Amino acid sequence: MLRKEYDHIILLAHGSPDPLWKQPFESLYQQIVDVYGEDNASLAYMELTSPSLEDAIAQLDTNVNKVAVLPLFLAVGRHLRQDVPAQIDALQTEMLKIELLPPIGEDELVKEAMKSVVANHLGKV
Amino acid sequence: MLRKEYDHIILLAHGSPDPLWKQPFESLYQQIVDVYGEDNASLAYMELTSPSLEDAIAQLDTNVNKVAVLPLFLAVGRHLRQDVPAQIDALQTEMLKIELLPPIGEDELVKEAMKSVVANHLGKV
Repeated sequence: MLRKEYDHIILLAHGSPDPLWKQPFESLYQQIVDVYGEDNASLAYMELTSPSLEDAIAQLDTNVNKVAVLPLFLAVGRHLRQDVPAQIDALQTEMLKIELLPPIGEDELVKEAMKSVVANHLGKV
Repeated sequence: MLRKEYDHIILLAHGSPDPLWKQPFESLYQQIVDVYGEDNASLAYMELTSPSLEDAIAQLDTNVNKVAVLPLFLAVGRHLRQDVPAQIDALQTEMLKIELLPPIGEDELVKEAMKSVVANHLGKV
């Protein structure tokens, strides 16, 4: 079981018309599932790629009452300010609370990693 | 000067109609510039947000002959398979070689950081 204040996390990537685009997100998700199990985490896409957020919510156990959505995005734009909150509003019920987390790219760990990658490319690390 | 095989790196983000979207990319770029200087790195956007890749190339010193483009993207889709290579083809000359690097999200450092962020949200770290 999760120590945090939600029962399940949904990793939400953008989606793409390119069928190969989703591979790194599926790879990340598989590594998470290998360690933490499928009960704790799902992978979904905002648009164009399956499964949708609605699909992921429909698959949840009935004992899941509080879900966190972690956007696999680098920054907040129209999608995370409007589109995804609208999807969440439509899917949220009295029995199922859905919280939208800040995007993974705004986490300090990812920001520091990106700085290191740029520094490595600059030949300075 | 750079130790690597190129003279300058251009960080290339997607671009957005949302004016606030670019803030984390500008913040990352500013931190890079604070350490490594403006001569070694630029920030540009594939579409919708300024400056464009063409703008960034136009600003380069004439002694820059080999440029790397580092996509600030999480995965390779149509944009990095077709659109950005087409932009690069149009901007590349005999005097200025432009190399497209893999996206920052496919670097092991960023992948490991993303796994840690998910693990933290799962309350397992």
